[in-house]
Amino acid sequence: MIDYRRLRVALLGAGAVGSQVASLLLRHGDELADRAGAALELVGIAVRDLDAPRDTDLPRELFTTDAESLILGADIVIELMGGIEPARTYLLQAINSGADVVTANKALLATHGSEIFDAADQVGAQVYYEAAAAGAIPIIRPLRDSLAGDRVQRIMGIVNGTTNYILDRMDTEGAELVDVLTEAQALGYAESDPTADVEGYDAAQKAAILASLAFHTAVPLSAVHREGIMTIDKTMIDAARHAGYVIKLLAVCERLQEQTDAAASVSPGESISVRVYPALVPRTHPLASVHGANNAVFVQAEAAGNLMFYGAGAGGVQTASAVLGDVVSAARRHIAGGVGVGESTLANLPVVPIGRVTTRYQITLEVDDRPGVLATVAGILSDGRVSIATMEQTLEQTLEGGADTARLVIGTHKAREQDLSETVERLAASGVVERVASVLRVEGD
Amino acid sequence: MIDYRRLRVALLGAGAVGSQVASLLLRHGDELADRAGAALELVGIAVRDLDAPRDTDLPRELFTTDAESLILGADIVIELMGGIEPARTYLLQAINSGADVVTANKALLATHGSEIFDAADQVGAQVYYEAAAAGAIPIIRPLRDSLAGDRVQRIMGIVNGTTNYILDRMDTEGAELVDVLTEAQALGYAESDPTADVEGYDAAQKAAILASLAFHTAVPLSAVHREGIMTIDKTMIDAARHAGYVIKLLAVCERLQEQTDAAASVSPGESISVRVYPALVPRTHPLASVHGANNAVFVQAEAAGNLMFYGAGAGGVQTASAVLGDVVSAARRHIAGGVGVGESTLANLPVVPIGRVTTRYQITLEVDDRPGVLATVAGILSDGRVSIATMEQTLEQTLEGGADTARLVIGTHKAREQDLSETVERLAASGVVERVASVLRVEGD
Repeated sequence: MIDYRRLRVALLGAGAVGSQVASLLLRHGDELADRAGAALELVGIAVRDLDAPRDTDLPRELFTTDAESLILGADIVIELMGGIEPARTYLLQAINSGADVVTANKALLATHGSEIFDAADQVGAQVYYEAAAAGAIPIIRPLRDSLAGDRVQRIMGIVNGTTNYILDRMDTEGAELVDVLTEAQALGYAESDPTADVEGYDAAQKAAILASLAFHTAVPLSAVHREGIMTIDKTMIDAARHAGYVIKLLAVCERLQEQTDAAASVSPGESISVRVYPALVPRTHPLASVHGANNAVFVQAEAAGNLMFYGAGAGGVQTASAVLGDVVSAARRHIAGGVGVGESTLANLPVVPIGRVTTRYQITLEVDDRPGVLATVAGILSDGRVSIATMEQTLEQTLEGGADTARLVIGTHKAREQDLSETVERLAASGVVERVASVLRVEGD
Repeated sequence: MIDYRRLRVALLGAGAVGSQVASLLLRHGDELADRAGAALELVGIAVRDLDAPRDTDLPRELFTTDAESLILGADIVIELMGGIEPARTYLLQAINSGADVVTANKALLATHGSEIFDAADQVGAQVYYEAAAAGAIPIIRPLRDSLAGDRVQRIMGIVNGTTNYILDRMDTEGAELVDVLTEAQALGYAESDPTADVEGYDAAQKAAILASLAFHTAVPLSAVHREGIMTIDKTMIDAARHAGYVIKLLAVCERLQEQTDAAASVSPGESISVRVYPALVPRTHPLASVHGANNAVFVQAEAAGNLMFYGAGAGGVQTASAVLGDVVSAARRHIAGGVGVGESTLANLPVVPIGRVTTRYQITLEVDDRPGVLATVAGILSDGRVSIATMEQTLEQTLEGGADTARLVIGTHKAREQDLSETVERLAASGVVERVASVLRVEGD
C-alpha cells in the first residue's frame, strides 16, 4: 500500500449523479488513489436539506448544509447541484480559494463559462467539465487535446437522449410524438416539464460548449439558434423514411468560410454557426444508427477526417464516470504541480446568425392539382435563389367536395437560410400553395 | 500577435506521417501557438538519407542526418521513424536530455513501453502516443484520463484498417480473400509484404497498448494471443452472414474474474486476457457497421456503460492530426510546468493464457450423413464440458461416388478455450467427422 498524499474532495449536490460519484469515490478509493497518485478523501457533501429523502446508503455524517465551509480548505470541489445560482457563486469561491473544480453544469457553463474560465486563469486553477457536454461520452478531451493540432470543420451531435428516444420510437414504431412523450414521462425518461429537452434548450447548451471548444471561441448561449421537436409528426417521419432519411435533433457547429456579402457589408473571413434543430439525416450516415436515448458526436476535422464518439448521454452512474475521470485528472495536476491550462478562445471567430447559414432543405407543400402550379412553384424558388435538386409530386386524397390537392416534396441544393425562408413565405402567399406542410434542413449528406 | 515563448521541436522521420506533421506545423504555426500557448519552432527533420526522393515541398534546409544533435536541445521530440532501433535509442536520449516525446511507434511501445515510460518517470518527462493505438481516433486520452475514475471491463477494437477493408469487401461483394488482398496491394492499401496486417501482428501491438492503458497493467506483446485472417474464406463469410454475423478481426482486451481452478492451482482474483483473432460479431452490434479501412474501439466500462470511438485508423494526414494533438499537449505542459504524470501500471493484473479464456464458439463440421452421428457429436461436446446452444444441419452436395456428407453448424454456450480446443481435437478424431471446417469465436453478443 503506497502512502499517498491526501487530497480533500468536496461534493456539492447529492442527486442522481452526485450520489453515484460519492458512492464510487468511497467504493473504489484504493484503485482511484493508484491512478491519481493521491488519496481522494471525500470530506463532505453539501445539500440543501439534510432531511430530504435519499435513495442512497452514504454515511450520514458526510452531509452538510454549509457548502461554504466545505469549499474552504478543499483541494478539489465537485459541483453537481445544477442551475445557475448558488452553483456559480460556489464555483467561483472554490476557484478563488485555490481548488481545482469539476462540474457537470452545462447551463452554467453555457451562460457563465467565460466568467468561470477567466477566474480560473487568474489563479492558475483548472476547470474540468467532461460530464457537461454529452454525459459519459469522452468528448471534451478529444476536442481540447487530441484535436488541438487539427482544425475542426464541423460537429454534428445527437446530444439529448430524451429527444432521440422520442424520435427513434416514432421512426421505428410509427408512434405519435405526444404518445411517446407521455409514456417516456411515465417511465421517468422524460421530465414532467419536458421543455428543456423537447424545445432544444438542453441541446443548445451543449452545442455552445462543444462549439467553444472546437473553434477556440467563446460562444454565448444566446448565439445558438434553437428549434425543438414539437412540430415533428408521424407524416414527416414517414416522408423522411420514404426519402431515405431519419429525423434527428442535431446540434450543428460549423466553421464557415464566408464570401463577401456586399449588401450586408460583411467582410470575408472565417466565422462559425451553432444551431440546434430537427434535421433529415441520411440513413447511411453513422448518426442515423444512434438509437434510443444514446448520444453521439460526429466530428469532421481537416486532417483527422471523420470521427464519431458514441455512448450514453445521460444517467446518474454513466455521468458519474465522466465526473470521476475529471476528479482523477484534477488530482494528478495537483500532484504534478504547475499552473492550469486555460481554455483557448483566441480564435475569437464571429458567430453568424441563422440567416447566413447554407444547408440543403426539404420543403413539403400541399398544392392545387392543376396545370401551371409546378411552373409557378419552380419560378418562385428560382427567383428566390433556391435551386431545386429533386421534386416529387404525389396525389393526395381528395377532400370531400373540395378541389384536388397534390403533395409536392422539393429537395433543394444548398441555399442560404435567409433566401429559403423568404422564398417559403412567398410560396405560402402564392395562391397555388394550400399549406407549407414542413421545411426541414438536410444534414450529413 | 502574442509574443509566445518558443519551443524547439525536432522531428525524426519524414515518411507519410512525418512529412504531413512537418507541413501542418509550418502551415498552421500561428494557430497552433495560440492553442499551445507557445510558438512551436520546427528546428529540424532527421532522415537517413538526405537525397532520398520525397513527395513534399518542405524546406530542404530542415533536413539532417544528424539525429543526435537535433535531439540535444529540443524541447519536444517527435519520433515517426518506426521500428525498434534506432527509434528506441533516440527516444531515450530525448527523454534523458529533458525533452517531452511524441511517438506513433506501436511496435516500440508494445515491446519496450515499460523501459521508455520508466525512463520518462525518472526525469519527470512525458511520453505522448495518441497516434500509436488507432491512428486518428482519440482513444488514449479517453482511456487514460476520461475513464480514469471508472473500471474498464472489456475493449473490442477493429484496429487494423487493411484487414477490415479485406473482410468488408469479402462480406459485401462475396470476393475471395486472396483477390481482395492482391487488389489492395496494387492500390497501396496493403503492404507488398502484408504479414504485419493479415497475421494480426499490427493489431496485437495495438491491443497490448490499449490493454496496458485500460487495465493499468504492463502488458507485454508476448502475452497477446494472436491469430490472423488468412484462414477466412468465402464459405465462412457466407455462413456467418446466414447466421446473422459478420467476421471482423478483433482486438479483445477483457477483465476476468477467475474462479479458483484447483487443477491449475490458480488463486481467485482479477486477471486480464488480451487477444487478437477473427471473430463472429452480431450484425446488430455497432462494430458490425464499421466498413472499409475504418477503425473503431468499443469500450464497456462499469459505470460509463458502452462507448464507441470511430474514425480513420491510418493514413498520413489523419495520423498527423493525432501526433500534432500530442505536440500541443506537450507544449502546454512545458509552459504550465510541473512534472509529467507517468502511466499507471499499479494494478499489475496477470495476463492469462488463451486456454483460460471463455467465449462462445461456432464450430462448423463436415460429418457423415448417417444415423447416430449427431448423438456422437453431442456426446463428445458434452463430455468436453462444451454446452450446445444451437445446432443446424444442412445436407452437402454428395461427392461423386462418395458417401453423403452433411454440414453441421454448432453454436456453443460460453466455454473455456482449453476445453473447446481439446473437444475439437476429439471431434476431428472421432471417425464421424470428416473435416472441421472452421472454429470461430463469437464476440459482442
